[in-house]
Amino acid sequence: MEKIKVTIGVDIGGTNTAYGFVDKSGNIIHTSSIPTYSDKDANQLFERLFAEINSSFKKFEKDYELVGIGIGAPNANYYKGTVELPPNLNWGVVNVLDLIKRYSPLPSAITNDANAAAIGEMIFGAAKGMKNFIVITLGTGLGSGIIVNGDLVYGADGFAGEIGHTTVDPNGRECGCGRKGCLETYASATGIKRTVFELIASTNLPSKLREKSFNELTSKEIADAANEGDKLALAAFDYTAKILGLKLADSVAHLSPEAIILFGGLALAGDLILLPTKKYMEENLLNIFKNKVKIIPSALPGANAAVLGSSALIWNELAKKNY
Amino acid sequence: MEKIKVTIGVDIGGTNTAYGFVDKSGNIIHTSSIPTYSDKDANQLFERLFAEINSSFKKFEKDYELVGIGIGAPNANYYKGTVELPPNLNWGVVNVLDLIKRYSPLPSAITNDANAAAIGEMIFGAAKGMKNFIVITLGTGLGSGIIVNGDLVYGADGFAGEIGHTTVDPNGRECGCGRKGCLETYASATGIKRTVFELIASTNLPSKLREKSFNELTSKEIADAANEGDKLALAAFDYTAKILGLKLADSVAHLSPEAIILFGGLALAGDLILLPTKKYMEENLLNIFKNKVKIIPSALPGANAAVLGSSALIWNELAKKNY
Repeated sequence: MEKIKVTIGVDIGGTNTAYGFVDKSGNIIHTSSIPTYSDKDANQLFERLFAEINSSFKKFEKDYELVGIGIGAPNANYYKGTVELPPNLNWGVVNVLDLIKRYSPLPSAITNDANAAAIGEMIFGAAKGMKNFIVITLGTGLGSGIIVNGDLVYGADGFAGEIGHTTVDPNGRECGCGRKGCLETYASATGIKRTVFELIASTNLPSKLREKSFNELTSKEIADAANEGDKLALAAFDYTAKILGLKLADSVAHLSPEAIILFGGLALAGDLILLPTKKYMEENLLNIFKNKVKIIPSALPGANAAVLGSSALIWNELAKKNY
Repeated sequence: MEKIKVTIGVDIGGTNTAYGFVDKSGNIIHTSSIPTYSDKDANQLFERLFAEINSSFKKFEKDYELVGIGIGAPNANYYKGTVELPPNLNWGVVNVLDLIKRYSPLPSAITNDANAAAIGEMIFGAAKGMKNFIVITLGTGLGSGIIVNGDLVYGADGFAGEIGHTTVDPNGRECGCGRKGCLETYASATGIKRTVFELIASTNLPSKLREKSFNELTSKEIADAANEGDKLALAAFDYTAKILGLKLADSVAHLSPEAIILFGGLALAGDLILLPTKKYMEENLLNIFKNKVKIIPSALPGANAAVLGSSALIWNELAKKNY
């Protein structure tokens, strides 16, 4: 009997590195994770990771065959195979694809987290069958992956898709990138927390969120408060959506996508963020684009979304080679 | 002896429709134009155009062979072959590719003016050899053509590339599209005239431009004044470039192009617009994009740029089919 082909999807995070064996239909045969040890170098991670993979695959090797490795990592460059100065890993610049050749002869590819999410949605998720769409990840920051004509947009240098660093206001909030007023300082899990604190300062709206410190507060608590009718929390969602909708209208003017898919922590707020973002985007669209562009939630299962995205990356590469 | 293959490049404007016979290297064998009669329907134009083309080609048919027709037109849709509600032509919605089948059996393609300019730059102009770039046309409005991975970005509906209608300020200048604060109300030949009049109203800067009515003033006169040291004209260029540079940084964040090519009336101001636009764009770029993206002028000869762009469109289609 022919073995079922599976790829290894790897998601490298600052704390943990998750991996999974995923078949062509997106079924996860096995998934697990190991600590990343972000203060150490990249090689120690891959040495431990492949020891773990080889050991855990043993009980599957009778029925399954490994055919490729897809990796999602912060600041990854698809063209070069590198990870370059990731903010939360002490790696410097490292060529990951060269490095993993020490541990596996399988074909491999790497891209950043948001791009992996975009390919994941295209192959396994909410964008099945779509050729032109944008994935926006609303986590600590705002990441984006852009698909045009069925391919990821990498641009001239491999770093395209930084919609989180388009400018809302050149004199606006300080961004981690050193500039001011970037979209991600408003529209992200952190951005909505900043908005809550701005509203606490500027309004007298009563709110249970006034009892929380900035470091305690989570975007889920803001969503829970909004769902209970908390006026300040609702105002924070409205303001977040107003800015996100305005800037997504700019993205539509560039790319005319079929859909924009919201992914990540803040997107879990569902209609609280989807509906007003759609409303404000529509208000700012050129006539020819009105009522054409869907705003929809990710259809990748939350806990395994990143592993599925990384797996989809290498499935997509193998498909290009008619594997 | 084998005949030299040429395509017909057609540029449909509100006043005149120009056409030319163009070989694969961009040599123009012949070019001419006829009046468009914008108040009449599309069919009368193509009837006259093909009569003119057939007549003028007679003296070339011994040495040349027509192999395709490329058309640049306002509000053209590449996917559908249509022109839809062009602002300066009384055509309604018309399928141009169907229409011209009455007059010619040659393969044909249509796209809007800015997209034709982008393909023209890629095949014959400043973007030869580039796979990722943006053309910005600074005329009455601001048009744009985006190339990703060597292909034009048409998006889900064929209308992608409307960077002129990204928003600078939701409460800003009234735009012809019915919205407010679109980029083209600031950065275009008309936009810089509006800026001159705003500066006349808001400052006491001495300027010869104070002697001109809005309808008299041209962007060339503003450039001439700036070149003579006119402080108000210089301030108008600086303001235009500041807004254009800020918004182009947003485009770079989406697409990470190798270059941005400025085309059209206002681009003829040369370094007056190129240098400050580059400066302001750099100030607003995310670190990873700094000092990577060129801002360069069009390399298509002004008078024939549109015909060359339309010709390049169909040469590019024929190349895809390995013609």
